[in-house]
This record gives sequence, structure tokens and C-alpha cells, in this order.
Amino acid sequence: MRYTTAGESHGPKLTAVIEGIPAGVTLSADVINAALSRRQQGYGRGNRMKIEHDQVEIVSGVRHQKTLGSPITLQVTNRDYAHWDDIMSPTAVATAENTVRQVTKPRPGHADLVGGQKYQQHDLRNVLERSSARETTMRVAVGSVCQQLLAAIDVEVLGFVQQLGGIQADPAKLPELGDLTTLRTVTEASDVRTYDEVAATKIRALIDATKKAGDTLGGVVEVVATNLPAGLGSFVSADTKLDAQLAQAIISINAFKGVEFGDGFGLAEHPGSEDMDEILYTPAQGFYRGSNHLGGFEGGMTNGEPVIVKGVMKPIPTLYKPLNSVDIATKQAYKANVERSDTTAVPAAAAVAEAMVAITLAKAVLAKFDADALPRLQAQVTAYRKELAAY
Amino acid sequence: MRYTTAGESHGPKLTAVIEGIPAGVTLSADVINAALSRRQQGYGRGNRMKIEHDQVEIVSGVRHQKTLGSPITLQVTNRDYAHWDDIMSPTAVATAENTVRQVTKPRPGHADLVGGQKYQQHDLRNVLERSSARETTMRVAVGSVCQQLLAAIDVEVLGFVQQLGGIQADPAKLPELGDLTTLRTVTEASDVRTYDEVAATKIRALIDATKKAGDTLGGVVEVVATNLPAGLGSFVSADTKLDAQLAQAIISINAFKGVEFGDGFGLAEHPGSEDMDEILYTPAQGFYRGSNHLGGFEGGMTNGEPVIVKGVMKPIPTLYKPLNSVDIATKQAYKANVERSDTTAVPAAAAVAEAMVAITLAKAVLAKFDADALPRLQAQVTAYRKELAAY
Amino acid sequence: MRYTTAGESHGPKLTAVIEGIPAGVTLSADVINAALSRRQQGYGRGNRMKIEHDQVEIVSGVRHQKTLGSPITLQVTNRDYAHWDDIMSPTAVATAENTVRQVTKPRPGHADLVGGQKYQQHDLRNVLERSSARETTMRVAVGSVCQQLLAAIDVEVLGFVQQLGGIQADPAKLPELGDLTTLRTVTEASDVRTYDEVAATKIRALIDATKKAGDTLGGVVEVVATNLPAGLGSFVSADTKLDAQLAQAIISINAFKGVEFGDGFGLAEHPGSEDMDEILYTPAQGFYRGSNHLGGFEGGMTNGEPVIVKGVMKPIPTLYKPLNSVDIATKQAYKANVERSDTTAVPAAAAVAEAMVAITLAKAVLAKFDADALPRLQAQVTAYRKELAAY
Amino acid sequence: MRYTTAGESHGPKLTAVIEGIPAGVTLSADVINAALSRRQQGYGRGNRMKIEHDQVEIVSGVRHQKTLGSPITLQVTNRDYAHWDDIMSPTAVATAENTVRQVTKPRPGHADLVGGQKYQQHDLRNVLERSSARETTMRVAVGSVCQQLLAAIDVEVLGFVQQLGGIQADPAKLPELGDLTTLRTVTEASDVRTYDEVAATKIRALIDATKKAGDTLGGVVEVVATNLPAGLGSFVSADTKLDAQLAQAIISINAFKGVEFGDGFGLAEHPGSEDMDEILYTPAQGFYRGSNHLGGFEGGMTNGEPVIVKGVMKPIPTLYKPLNSVDIATKQAYKANVERSDTTAVPAAAAVAEAMVAITLAKAVLAKFDADALPRLQAQVTAYRKELAAY
Repeated sequence: MRYTTAGESHGPKLTAVIEGIPAGVTLSADVINAALSRRQQGYGRGNRMKIEHDQVEIVSGVRHQKTLGSPITLQVTNRDYAHWDDIMSPTAVATAENTVRQVTKPRPGHADLVGGQKYQQHDLRNVLERSSARETTMRVAVGSVCQQLLAAIDVEVLGFVQQLGGIQADPAKLPELGDLTTLRTVTEASDVRTYDEVAATKIRALIDATKKAGDTLGGVVEVVATNLPAGLGSFVSADTKLDAQLAQAIISINAFKGVEFGDGFGLAEHPGSEDMDEILYTPAQGFYRGSNHLGGFEGGMTNGEPVIVKGVMKPIPTLYKPLNSVDIATKQAYKANVERSDTTAVPAAAAVAEAMVAITLAKAVLAKFDADALPRLQAQVTAYRKELAAY
Repeated sequence: MRYTTAGESHGPKLTAVIEGIPAGVTLSADVINAALSRRQQGYGRGNRMKIEHDQVEIVSGVRHQKTLGSPITLQVTNRDYAHWDDIMSPTAVATAENTVRQVTKPRPGHADLVGGQKYQQHDLRNVLERSSARETTMRVAVGSVCQQLLAAIDVEVLGFVQQLGGIQADPAKLPELGDLTTLRTVTEASDVRTYDEVAATKIRALIDATKKAGDTLGGVVEVVATNLPAGLGSFVSADTKLDAQLAQAIISINAFKGVEFGDGFGLAEHPGSEDMDEILYTPAQGFYRGSNHLGGFEGGMTNGEPVIVKGVMKPIPTLYKPLNSVDIATKQAYKANVERSDTTAVPAAAAVAEAMVAITLAKAVLAKFDADALPRLQAQVTAYRKELAAY
Repeated sequence: MRYTTAGESHGPKLTAVIEGIPAGVTLSADVINAALSRRQQGYGRGNRMKIEHDQVEIVSGVRHQKTLGSPITLQVTNRDYAHWDDIMSPTAVATAENTVRQVTKPRPGHADLVGGQKYQQHDLRNVLERSSARETTMRVAVGSVCQQLLAAIDVEVLGFVQQLGGIQADPAKLPELGDLTTLRTVTEASDVRTYDEVAATKIRALIDATKKAGDTLGGVVEVVATNLPAGLGSFVSADTKLDAQLAQAIISINAFKGVEFGDGFGLAEHPGSEDMDEILYTPAQGFYRGSNHLGGFEGGMTNGEPVIVKGVMKPIPTLYKPLNSVDIATKQAYKANVERSDTTAVPAAAAVAEAMVAITLAKAVLAKFDADALPRLQAQVTAYRKELAAY
Repeated sequence: MRYTTAGESHGPKLTAVIEGIPAGVTLSADVINAALSRRQQGYGRGNRMKIEHDQVEIVSGVRHQKTLGSPITLQVTNRDYAHWDDIMSPTAVATAENTVRQVTKPRPGHADLVGGQKYQQHDLRNVLERSSARETTMRVAVGSVCQQLLAAIDVEVLGFVQQLGGIQADPAKLPELGDLTTLRTVTEASDVRTYDEVAATKIRALIDATKKAGDTLGGVVEVVATNLPAGLGSFVSADTKLDAQLAQAIISINAFKGVEFGDGFGLAEHPGSEDMDEILYTPAQGFYRGSNHLGGFEGGMTNGEPVIVKGVMKPIPTLYKPLNSVDIATKQAYKANVERSDTTAVPAAAAVAEAMVAITLAKAVLAKFDADALPRLQAQVTAYRKELAAY
């Protein structure tokens, strides 16, 4: 399975094409739209998110809600494109009018300056239109397709907020991971998408105070995936390790600066004897682990325990508090301008991280099992799970 | 550029093949051997490392110490293979004698159990021989080739220890990053490979105490790369982000469970206004940043500041303190056996992480510039640096 | 550079996404539309082609007719989709009405039967909608983008008909290959897209007679590319050979069953001494060859001579003369049904082959030179051409 | 599955690394050696081939003749390396003595000149050492591994000579393709590796006469693969078509200039009604075709009929009859020198083409079915074959 996204933030349309999804998967546009909506929510967002109300259009690869095995095209129309047609038109000739508003002031912490240098651009709009996190819209759409596939083999994926600003949810309050129903109910009911209501209250207060101060907040999102069979990914080569692929997937999200599995950086703090996941066995359950410090991976492979991935998102760099920067045309220093008004996007980013994990896991499933037709895939997965149980 | 490693821990030879290194690079086996030696050192290693003394053999792609542009084959002979010939022979028929010592006891925290399930093996030696960190030998060899290439365009990469067990080196003591000479001198002189001698003393004491307790230690390694031109990697698609590729590279190392860039997980702690890298400019220097919280990346691209990557290594799971596990043949619980005796491998892992960063950066350089012949590559890099300076 | 196409023959839209085209390329929708139109022409086509009149829409990656370096999305709306909405809707639920017309009769020579088996489909419409040559529409659109890029470094690509049915154009009449202007003028003026008017007259007569007989015709198309610098592709590994990549590109076109370079299969007929391209040199011209039996390739690399690729297209399998087949539902033999009415599509296929060659060559150019920004790419190509001349 | 080859013609060793072969395949070095020997035989070879007697060494990925699932390393030592150590040493410094014999005379029809230009080399030995067909040794070794895998699911592959110089084997004499036993017995008994003894006699005479004349001969090789399940490869995207991948594989062989499937270029000669493979069905056999004009492919997928691929090899360019060329150092014209003395290598090339087809088919099998463990792969293939039979 592979996918591609395309589209500028204020261009006509965002597009994703997914190749290699098996035929026979039931695919609902409504489910995708619900995922898109989750990406647009969260306490601490500014106004633009409220205006947009993304709706997916499926224009290939699906017939009567069933995948065909051919490439699936998903599209989201940018609703305000009408206002931008002049400035962003792919086909209109450049004129004095439609190019008058050039962006020459690169924002610190964004791709603006380096993008201008790399692509030899002097109107930085030509960079920021694509480097915008607007792109993650299509990742969420692709992620939803992958989740609909994974659901067909009873694998679930859920992202939520573990920390926002300096405030952490209390891991002791995390519900038992089983089919994720409880956890999903709790976190989806929360406008800061976390499971610890005490922390949530503090987080809302922090967001309010930070907003008032004209500042921004980062945080840590956590993604959990359950019921994966042991043995996805491999130790045989560096690029076959599935946890490493997940790390790439998480860091590829705009503003993500770190990723960890299970206890992650905490593993540097204690002696090994405190961090080990012992191997246990019962005839009914087969092999399992007594704990999950390693976040569901051994040797780069799923080990049958829940996959636990965390990623850190830096605070949104666009600030009300202006920052020093330099105009690329005049080389004059200036105070960086503000383009939008979110205080934090961490709750939304949890939905994006969930999507990236789902995509990566779906790839791993389709690499190991039949990727042509869902019933055959399901039969193979069932046989494999039996085999594992009997090992 | 792409590379492949092969070889079992007690097999005849370890091999790496590297494709896509330009012709004309001066390649020294001595430099590779020095890198291999760095991987075998470090306070806290057990005895096996002292016996081995890896020497690379170059058997293709190089003539008279110059690369040819054709695939480069590197090999390291396992010196103790003679003792293992019977057990590990690729070509001998399996007999009662040479298969009598089957491994049926999977070690917790290792690939043993899942590997056995995935590859349908009942002698776990067939898993652990490849999942062993012995494989990283060839990554270090490949990394050294990449560093010799990067040096030809004045890019340097260095890995060292930032934290071992609960003890951190003090970032305030990190020398100014320039050409890395000072830092390299200091860290390479340290048997725990860190720049803070006060921390180093505590670390040695901690290792001694931990060894006595039969326990193990993890830690955090840091890799710095300097003088990279801005604009390697790209924001245009998820898989073109260079920091994400580095994350994959780091997590692909045995026992690594987390990775972060610049301030990493610390970015969740402070409001955005405290973490921003302002954009500055002087005619002499061109554009630069006032700080490096983002670790040298904006929008998935190098921004001209030093690349700063950190990775966390979990404690070595093999323990003197026995752990619960279950025999795969008998399904009887047992206390996990010990195969070796390192207390910590974090100083050595810094060399491996350095290699993985060098490989990933070399790939990015060769993707952007001519990968056929070094003089042409150098001319293009020079022209590009001039272009950046004049932007 | 990589690209993806998507879309069903009677679905809402055809889509292509192209990644890795440098910023700064002037891209004209009109030029793409002209290429699409060439694909729809040619003596011997039936009626559907006349109804369709494909128009591209560019919805990402381009602003004011200049590429941005971000993924380019091209779309063609299927004009008759309104008539198919019920049957082909991605989002409508399957009902008795919209699924009543199932295709259960696989056509010989098509993907129908095997596609049904592989993707576990029992309505073969779910196969034929994607396996249709309608998909090549988007390849031609992508090819046009690549040709607009190649033109910026003065590389030209042209496809035409060398043989149709048993009638060959006389190679002696092929104009001298220089900038392809003469050849293009001649072949594009011909409704059978060949340069030999005597052969063209015979071909038209053959098509008329074949049509009357209810039969179909295949043929051989030839693609020529000029002004490529020597040294694209490489001999170092099997998958780096550029001629091999072109072979894959040609055979990937629907109904193509063979490919050859230069004298191709003719090289088996004569002793080597009659087929050699001697190496010549003048200070003004640098190195060149005295002939071009090898079609512009030595060791899998361009050698500076025109690239000459030929591909054979089998006769369209859909026949008025019915063929034996078997209904997949009833297992009853039947005479295969007719879906459309082209006698031959070879002139159109020349446009498709041209596109595939352009795509493959553009990939090779972008793999060797800067793929971020056109001016930098052009500077590198110019420097490389100088270097070749001075060798 | 992916593989890499490395090594220079007169370097110390040739190496191949294969990743992704499932665990549990029985792998015999003797079988590989037999394949290597087939590549060294054939009427019309000169003397070097007789001196060499290639023997494979397996140094990773296999234990007691069973694959482990980890990368497999194969090596062949160049027996005459001792004579070349000075000239070809990877590690010795270049000196006046060991670089005195520079190659500055590029041979027409070889990679010499373009390789020198591309890789900025002035001693063309740095090109010809890798561009030599010696590289195909390792492809044959890899192909043998793939054939041992394919044999475990009852798939067979065989290459032989269809035409040599102007003399064709009579297709009417080709034995019925079943399990290939008859055909293999006949062609392997023939020193020109063909099934038509009348043609073989003429071919030998032609080779003798051509040798006397100091000239060389090309030819056409044919590769047949039987018992492949329908549905390998796919029509959904250009790069998923298996026949196109085979075309790349064949053209990637040194000196191959064309490839065709089934009737290939002959399909341009007749009206469609003469070239169609009708679909037939019996309950016992399931679906099958009445003929095999398409060479086992429909829509880029195997259709259950034997795969039939042909490739044309140009005459060996090295000639006793000298050819015009130009010294790269002096720019003086000269008559090209002779390096070896084969009159034709077509019978050997049939073994190479067989290997490339086996590799490509093994990749397709491993992409569709479990690639971790052979018993699981076999179970999936068996289930799939049943499914096809019941369709």
C-alpha cells in the first residue's frame, strides 16, 4: 500500500490517492467525514477551523461503497477557494494584480525561509501554501480508509492527548486497553481529547491563560493500537522494523519533534530490572507479556501487546507576540506577522497521529497478508492468529 | 544511495553492500576499522567485545582507495566462527550432533519469541543470530563510508552520550558546535563518551554499582551534524521529510525506543514564546537563527543550523537477575538465561547512532546533488552554498 | 519523480498526481489538452472517442502556470458520467436496480477473467472499469508535463507509427533526426501518424477492409528522443539501466507485447560486424557515433545519440467476429460480446508510448540533476553538457 | 524480495545479497553451482570461460541448508584475482607501477566511453570492470535461489535458444509444455541449448564459419515458466504489471536489445481474429485458454498459461575485425582492440535470462503470498489454487 497527498492550503482542492487497498472493503464517506471533523476540533483552535467544514468526495476506486482494488481518490474542496482564485489560480497568467501581495517575510519556526531558498522562490506564498498543516487533512482521510480496513480484521487505533503544555494526564487513570471502547468514549467526549478530567480542567485553564498572553502551547499525543497479531515488521534489516516506520510516520507530521514507544525516554532512568516485560503463557491465551514497557514491540516487530506510541508537538510558531525575522527582499529586520490564531492544535494533532499510525499499520498488514481481496486477507489473518495461538 | 547488511552473529561473515556512492571518493579501510573499534569500546562492556577485534575487508567498488561508482562490498569475518562452524554452517546437512543444542527459551525483551512465531522456527538460535546487535557492526562500517563522503563536502557527524542511567551530562558544558573538533576530542577521550567529566565520573560509579547488582542500564545518545546546507529534505510530502527519515534511522537501531530533535519532548513544557528560533541576517553570514531549539530542522528540511538528534536506548534486556519466561517446546515457565555480560552498551550505541545519522544525511545529499562523481558533486554543493549565501 | 494515476473508465473522474517536478516549470493546460486530443485521434477509431473530448483540470502544485515543487494534481472529468452515476457511484448503496446489469462474460484477451479471480469479483465491471485503456489518458497528461519539463532543457520526444497490420513505413524515408521539427510536422499531419505517405495510403485501405471484415489490427509504434546528454542511466546494477526502465514503461501500456531498441530483434540476424556503432570525434562535436544500431544506449546509458524505442501493440481484442468464452456465473460457453468499435488504436498508442518514454526520461533527468528548482537544474545540465564536450 | 549484486570482473570477489526469501527453503550450494556452470557453457565461447569454474560460497542467511529469513549472502571468488591484485587492489595506494596500464581506448558498443564521461574516469578499466557481463554470474546465483523457492510451489522456469544468427529453431518442434522435463532434457543436452537438432547443426556450422571470419553472432533466447497461478501482477497501475517488470528484467541483461511476450512482434502482422486466446472451461480444469498467443499474460497478470518471454541479444561487440574508435587521452582515432574471443554467448545468455525471469516471478509470488516462512507460503498458495479452481 502506498499513498500520495496533494494540494495547497488555499488552492482549489486537496487530493489523496491510495494504491493497494484490497477489493471488497466497505468504505463510508461518512466515516471519513467524521474523522475530518475530529481533526478540526479541540479546545484552543482559532476561527478558521470553524469556518471550514471538510467533506470528502470519493472519485475513484470505490463502487457502491466497496473498494475495487484500484487506486482510491479522495478529495476535499477548499470552501474559501473562490476568494483565492485570483491569487492561487493554477491556470491564470501572472499579472501585476494577482501577484501584488507577495509574502517576503519568513515566519520563524516555519518552512518559509528554507523553502524559499530550496525552491528558488521569492514569494513565500509558494512555500507556505504546501508546508501548511492543512496538508494533514488528507492524511486523516487516508488514515480513516486504513482504519476501516483494519477494523475488518478487528484492529483498532486511537489517538488522544497525554500532555498539553506542562500538564500531563495521569497514566494511572488510563482505562484498561481492550477493545478501546471505553477509552474512545472518554477521550472523544473531551474537548481536549484526554482521559483524565482533572488534567483536562487544568489544561483548559492553561489554554485560556496562554491565549490571553498571546502565546501558544505544545503537548504530547499518544496513539494506541490493539489486537495486532504478533510478527508485523521484522528484525532482519534496518528498514523492515515497524517501530522505526512508525517513528518516521509520527515525525513526518507538521511540528512533531519527538517520538517514543512504551516507556520511551523513561527507559533511560531506571535499571533494566524495573523495565522488563516478562513472558507468560496459558493454554487459553497462548504467549503474552506481564507488562508493556516496550510499547508492543520486540525486535522491531509487534509482540501482540497493544502498540503504544507517543509524539511531541511543539507550540504553534505563529505568535501574537511578534518574533524577530528578516524580509527576504529588503533584508530588513521586522517583527514576524501573524497568520492565524490557534493557541494550541494538540487535540487535533492526536487525530493526525492516529491517522499516521493507522496508515503505517495497514501497510504492515498488507505487506504480510493478501492485499488483493479482503475475504482472502481475512482468511489469512484468521489462519495466522490460530497459528500463533498454537505455537 | 541504498545499502544492505547481512550476516549472523556467529556465522562466517558479516557483509554490507552500498550502492550509489559516487566515484572518486577516497576510502580508507583504516578509517572504517577505527569506527568499528569505537563501536566495541565503552565502559561497562563485558568480555566478548574485548575478544572480537573487527577488521573490514573491502571486496568491491573500490580500486586503489578510490570508489568506482559501483556497489561497494564490505566484510567483517567473525573471528570465532571456527568454534561455531558445526552449529552454524550454511552448507552442512543438519544432523543429530549439530542441532542438539536448540534454543527453546525465549529471552524477554528480545526478538526471540516473536521471531520464532513469525518465521516458524522452533530453534530460536535461528532468530537470535540475526536479531543480535552484532548486526550494527556493518551499519557502523557503512556509516564510516558515508562520513568519508560527507567529509569531502565538509560535513561532520559526531555521536556521544548525553545521559546514562539517571545521570545526565550538563548541556551547559557542551562546547560550542563549530567544526566539532573540540567536542570530538573531549568525547572520544572519555570511556563513557561524554563531554561532562563530572557526569562521567558519576556514570562510571553507577555502572560499577549496577554491574555488582547484576543489573543493566540504558541511556540517551546525542548525534550532532554540522555544516549541512539548508534545504536537504522537503515539506512537500510526508516521506520527503528528512527529520522523519532520521527518526526511522535511529529507532531502527537495536534497543532504541525514542528519538527527538533539538529540545524534543521539552517543547511540550514551555509556551511557544520561549522556544522560538528567530531569523537573523548579516551580509557576511546570510540568514541564520538566533538559537537552535528545533535541532536544525524547519518543515522537515535542514535550516543550516547544526542537526541535533537524540535517541534513548533501553537497558540491555539480558540480565544476571533472572526473569520469568516460558520454554516454547515444553511450555514450562523458567527463569531466563544469560547469554552475555554487558552492563550497558550506551557509549557504543552512540557510535551506531552516529553511523545511522551519517547514512541518512549522505542519502539526502546524494538525492539532491550529483551522485555519479565526487568532483561534480562538490562543484554542485559549492554552487548551492553560494546561492544560499546570496539569497 | 514519481506519479500515480487513478480512475475508472466510467467513474466520475480520472486523476493523476505527480511528485518531484521542480519548481519554476511553466505548465500549460492547453499543451496538456493538445496531448490528450492526440490520444483520441487516429484513423480507425470508433465513435466513443469522438464523443469524449478530454480537458484537463489542474488542481494543485501549479500557481499562475508555474510549478511550485509540490505535488501536481491533474484531473479529467468523464463527460458521460451522468449516465453512469447510478451504476458507478462510489457512495450510493448497492441496490437491486443499480447492480442488475452485472458483467459475467469475460472477454478473451482482456483482464476480465483473471481480474475477477484475483480480486474475488463476480461482476466483471469491477475489473474492466480500471483495466480499460481509458487509464492511459492520465499517462498522456503526465507525459505532457514531463515533456514541458524536458523542453526546458531542449530534449524532445516524439511517437509515431512504424507499422500497422502488415504494412511498414519505409525507414529510408524517415527524416534526419535533429530537433524533430520536420518529423513532427509530417507525422502529426498524418491521420495514421506515420512519415511515409505511400505506406499511409495502404494502411488506410487496410483499416477500411479490416473494419468491413469486423476484424482489428495491431502495429508497431516508434518513439524517438533527441538531445539527451550521454550518461543517463547506469550499468552498475540491473535496476539502474535506463533502457530496461523504458522497456518496463512501454510494456506497461495496455496491449503492448514487445519492445526493442535501435535495430532490436534485427540484431539477431546479422554478424556483429554489420551492426556496430563506431566511435568518432571532432573537437567541435566531441565524441559521437558513426551510426545508431543500438538506439542511443550503451551499457544501459544514453550515449548522446537519439533514443529509438519501438513497441508492438496487439490487435484490440474486442471483436465484431465473436470469440468463444465462458460465463463465470453459469459456466456456459458463449460468443464474446462487443463493447466498442475501434478497428485499430495504433496511431493513438503512439501518443501513449511517447508519454511513457517522456515520463521515464524525465525521471532519469531528475534523478541525476537538481529536482527542486528549474533554474538550478538548467544550470547543472548546461555545466554537464560542457563537461561532456570537454571530455 | 530484493537483491543486490556487487563485484568487479577482476576484483577479489563477486557478491550478491538477497533479502526477503522466506525461512525454511532448502537451499543447495550444489544446485547454485550447477546453474553457474550452465552460464559458463555453450558452443562458441572462447577460452576464459574454460579457465574459470565458478563456485558459490554462502556466508549468511542459511543454516544447515535451510534459509533463516534473514539476508542471504552469496559469493564467488575470482580465481585469477592473484594475477590482478596489484592492478585491482581496493586498499593499495595508487602508484606509478600499479596504474601504468591505463585503458584509454573505449570499445564501440560497450559502456566504456559513456561510463568514463559519467563517472569522470580517465582509466576506462574503472568502467569496464563493472560493466562486464561477468556481473551476470551473481544474477544466475540469485536466480538459482529463486528457482529453488519456486520449485517448492511447483513452478518451473527454463531458458533456451530460439534463434542464433539467422537460424531459428522450428517452433513446431517445441515439446508440449507441461512440467518442462522433456524440454529441459533436450535443451540441456544441446551445446547450443536448443530443442531443434536440425537447427542446432546449422547453428554450430554458422558459429564455426563466423569464428573463422573473426566475427560474432547474436540471437534470441526464450524463457518458459509453467504452473504459475493466475493473478500474479496487476492491471491497476503501470508499475504493477508483471509482464512489464519482466521486460525490465530481460533488457537489464548485458547486450539485450529487445523483449517480447508470446507472439510478440508477430502480433503486428495478422488481424486480431487470428491471434486470440479463447476462454474455455471444464469442471475438472477450471478456466483455461485455447491457445497462448499472449504468452501467459492478460492485463499484466499471469493467466495460468505458461509464461513465454523472448529476448534478443546483440552480437558481442568485441571483434577480431577491428572497429574505429578514438583514444580518450590523445583524441587520436585507432582500431578498437580485442579483449576476448567468444564468437557468441547466446547459449549462456539463455541461462541468464532464465535467472532474471525466475527472480522476477519469485518477487511477484512473495509480494502476493506470505514471505516469512515457506510452510505458510505453501499453504496460502495451495488455498489460492483451490480458490481459482472453484471460481
